[in-house]
Amino acid sequence: MVKALILIADGTEEMEFTIVYDTLIRAGIECTSAFIPRGLSPYGSSDTSPPLAVCSRQVKILPDITLDPLSAGPEKYDALIIPGGMGGAVTMAESTEVQNLVRSYYNHPEKRTIGMICAGSKVAITAKLPGQPITSHPSVQSEFPEHFEYKEQNVVVSAVPGKATLVTSRGPGTAFPFVFTLIELLCGKDKRDEVVGPMIFPSCTTGYPF
Amino acid sequence: MVKALILIADGTEEMEFTIVYDTLIRAGIECTSAFIPRGLSPYGSSDTSPPLAVCSRQVKILPDITLDPLSAGPEKYDALIIPGGMGGAVTMAESTEVQNLVRSYYNHPEKRTIGMICAGSKVAITAKLPGQPITSHPSVQSEFPEHFEYKEQNVVVSAVPGKATLVTSRGPGTAFPFVFTLIELLCGKDKRDEVVGPMIFPSCTTGYPF
Ligand SMILES: [Cu+]
Repeated sequence: MVKALILIADGTEEMEFTIVYDTLIRAGIECTSAFIPRGLSPYGSSDTSPPLAVCSRQVKILPDITLDPLSAGPEKYDALIIPGGMGGAVTMAESTEVQNLVRSYYNHPEKRTIGMICAGSKVAITAKLPGQPITSHPSVQSEFPEHFEYKEQNVVVSAVPGKATLVTSRGPGTAFPFVFTLIELLCGKDKRDEVVGPMIFPSCTTGYPF
Repeated sequence: MVKALILIADGTEEMEFTIVYDTLIRAGIECTSAFIPRGLSPYGSSDTSPPLAVCSRQVKILPDITLDPLSAGPEKYDALIIPGGMGGAVTMAESTEVQNLVRSYYNHPEKRTIGMICAGSKVAITAKLPGQPITSHPSVQSEFPEHFEYKEQNVVVSAVPGKATLVTSRGPGTAFPFVFTLIELLCGKDKRDEVVGPMIFPSCTTGYPF
C-alpha cells in the first residue's frame, strides 16, 4: 500500500491540507498527518494529544501524530507532502527536523515523491535542495535563489535522475491539480481517472497539465 | 458583518466543509461551525467539547460549537450551509432540529441564504422545502421527488420571491464554484473577485456560471 506523510502546523492552509489528505485517501493511499510544533505559537495551545492544529482560517484539525523524525523517514513513507499557509510553512521551513526530513526523502535510493504547495515550497529553499524547476504561491516567488528555475505553472514536476520527484504547486486553487498529479505519479493514470469521476469537476479542471 | 452557520457531523465531507469555511472567512464573513450529534455514531466519540467531527476520510475537525437550535436561527446568521459527505448528510437530513432550522431560514421575512452541496441537498427533501430548481451529487439524484426541478449543473441558484435563496451544488469538484456563488450573493461581485485572485485558480475555474 502506498503511504504518504502530510505535515501540518498552526497556520497551515486548511483547504490545501484537506484537499490533499482526503483525495489521496480516495486513491487508496494510506495518509498520516504529522504535527510540527513551534515554540511560542501565536495561536495558543490545546489539551489534545497531538495538539490541535489551528489552521490559517481557524479551522481546527487534530493531526494523526506529532512528528517523530526517527519514524517518519523515506523507508516508511513513499511521499512527503508540505502544504502552504504562511504561518505553517514558516514553521516547517525553519524546522531543522523538517529540513533534514526533506533531504532524506530527496536523496533516498528508492525514488520517493516530495510535494510542496503554495508557501510550502519555501521548504525547498531552507532544506537547500539543488536548483531545479519549481513553483510556489506568487507572494514568495522572490525568495527563490536564481539557481531554481521558477515557473508560473499550476503544477511543476521535477524529476532529477536518482533523486526524489519534486512536485510543486501554487495555491488553494491549484490544490486539486496538485493532488491528482501526485496520485498519477504514485498510483498511475487509471487510478487518477477513477478518483476524479465521483468528485464532479467542471470539465476544464480535470486534465493534467492544465 | 455577514454571518454564516456551517453544519458539520461525523462523516461530513471534509473538503466541502473546509473549502466553504475557509473561503467565506477570506471574504470577511464570520463563520461558525456547529456540530450535529448522532446517537450511536459509527465513528466513536471524543473527549473534546464540542466533540471532534470525524469526517468522511478521517480528517478530524473541532467544530466551533455544538448546535443549539435556540441560538442558531435566521435572526442570528445570514446564511446556513449544509455540506455533503453521505454519513454527515444523513445525520443532518434525519435531524428534526436541522429540518426545523432549514425551514426557519427558508421562511424568514428578511431574505436569507441556504447553501447545500453534494449529499447535503438531501436536507431539502426531509425539510420538505417546496419544489424548485435544485442539484446534488449524482448518487442521490433519484431521491428527489418530481416536484423538484433537478438540474445537472455545477451550481443552481433558486430564488423564490419572499423566501430564502437556495444555492445547491454537486460535489468536492464544484465546492469552489459553490462558495464563490455564496460570496457573490452575500457580499457582491467585487468581493468575490478580490477573494478569487490570491487563490491562484487555473483560469477556466473562476467564472460563474462555469
Ligand atoms: Cu458527497
